[in-house]
Amino acid sequence: MSGIMFERVGIVGLGLIGASFGLALRGRGVAGWVIGVDRDTEAIATARRRGAVDEGATDHAALEGADLVIVAVPPQSVVDAVLRAASVARPEAILLDVASVKGPIVRALEAALPEGARFVGGHPMAGTERRGGAAADAALLAGRPFLIIPTMRSDAGAVDAVRSLVRSLGMRPLLLDPGVHDAIVAQVSHVPYLLAVAAVNAAEDGALGLGGPAFEALRRVAGSPVELWVEICMHNREAILRSLGWVRDELDRLERALSEGGLAEVLTAARRRAGVGG
Amino acid sequence: MSGIMFERVGIVGLGLIGASFGLALRGRGVAGWVIGVDRDTEAIATARRRGAVDEGATDHAALEGADLVIVAVPPQSVVDAVLRAASVARPEAILLDVASVKGPIVRALEAALPEGARFVGGHPMAGTERRGGAAADAALLAGRPFLIIPTMRSDAGAVDAVRSLVRSLGMRPLLLDPGVHDAIVAQVSHVPYLLAVAAVNAAEDGALGLGGPAFEALRRVAGSPVELWVEICMHNREAILRSLGWVRDELDRLERALSEGGLAEVLTAARRRAGVGG
Repeated sequence: MSGIMFERVGIVGLGLIGASFGLALRGRGVAGWVIGVDRDTEAIATARRRGAVDEGATDHAALEGADLVIVAVPPQSVVDAVLRAASVARPEAILLDVASVKGPIVRALEAALPEGARFVGGHPMAGTERRGGAAADAALLAGRPFLIIPTMRSDAGAVDAVRSLVRSLGMRPLLLDPGVHDAIVAQVSHVPYLLAVAAVNAAEDGALGLGGPAFEALRRVAGSPVELWVEICMHNREAILRSLGWVRDELDRLERALSEGGLAEVLTAARRRAGVGG
Repeated sequence: MSGIMFERVGIVGLGLIGASFGLALRGRGVAGWVIGVDRDTEAIATARRRGAVDEGATDHAALEGADLVIVAVPPQSVVDAVLRAASVARPEAILLDVASVKGPIVRALEAALPEGARFVGGHPMAGTERRGGAAADAALLAGRPFLIIPTMRSDAGAVDAVRSLVRSLGMRPLLLDPGVHDAIVAQVSHVPYLLAVAAVNAAEDGALGLGGPAFEALRRVAGSPVELWVEICMHNREAILRSLGWVRDELDRLERALSEGGLAEVLTAARRRAGVGG
């Protein structure tokens, strides 16, 4: 699992996640050289200062010769960034995106990438309500699941290489179909965020500062930067609406139990399910 | 704020909250002597071993001569425990309960307590999903709000004494009417718990172990012990149902925004509100 796995790694997008991957790749000695690409020269300066990259550039031409490119830009920019990376990296380079929405991105890239391009979709289940390279931390990734979404462009060797890569960064790889991925992240990421938004918007002003631990957690989540969440929610709208419907059904069940009895059974079911997976 | 404020303090109920108060009272030198009362001899042994009490007893007779009694038992046992404490503590003793539901308890005690009894309702906004004296920690209380609910039995001196007491334990006292209290805790404690229950019960089995930070927080909350939550929810049912209705209205607004646009405004409102109070 250790030692240099990729000689020349490009990271496109030096925000929280991109710079965290840079720190993890360099910290664990998995990459021989890391090139960070970002339109924002301040993001590059921050990534260099933090030690997340060996070299920074504002132009994707710097990805020339890369054998791995990690694309860590907001969902609506992923397709464009992967196509640019494919045009300059080595032909056999692995192209890995890490956006939190997969279905639309994977479908668009399957249609647009040239024959033989080795694209694999990825999604690290990691993050914080902070943002930007200044908040990057290899520890954000360690121990977290990394969902791998193979496509028709993903040969078995590329998928295996990504699996080894994420293991070597201390993450837990898990293969998923794009549609299953989007349904799952709606349930365990997007809808929880929207529930936090609803709880905070529903609370009266006088209550906001008085939360116990559960509300404080929701408040931290609802305080996340908005722009990225709007993109994510719009890209995964169908799965989110379906999953919100299931949460409403559960709220119905709780209201009935509060009025008619049986609350202990509903709460016990949740407690038992909450124990699954550690 | 420092120095002994009460010579002889009784704590009834040596669970997570009761034992945490014991640790805080003794750690900060606020109490001359702390007597812990619990029916469970193991809870007493744990509290003694942890240093949360100077002395333990299974019978409320041990509260004789106390000038402060903190009642930290589940909601449905509070009224009985306060009445027993009032029958043996000094006539001028302050009786403080710390249950997370106040309206029904305060109304029952106003009717049942003898003339001159100095009862004050309290609610520390602190906790964890763990339970029992073994998990007690004075740090659970430090920096947290402590809601004080005066009643017709609470003379101004008693309210002031409780306020000084909780400040000396590092908490932030705030006076509230019982009805306002129950509405607020429905919004920032009980409903957040029920949202966590709904999110966990709505998630498919395959999704449960794959949560990001928001879902992990909800999962921890949904894993809380059930018996206490059933009591709390049933005691505060009216306020909870009202508050759940507001959350549903917010979910309607989010669904409309997902379908018809305007999502950024709703999310931005939540982000702004989430910043209130630090």
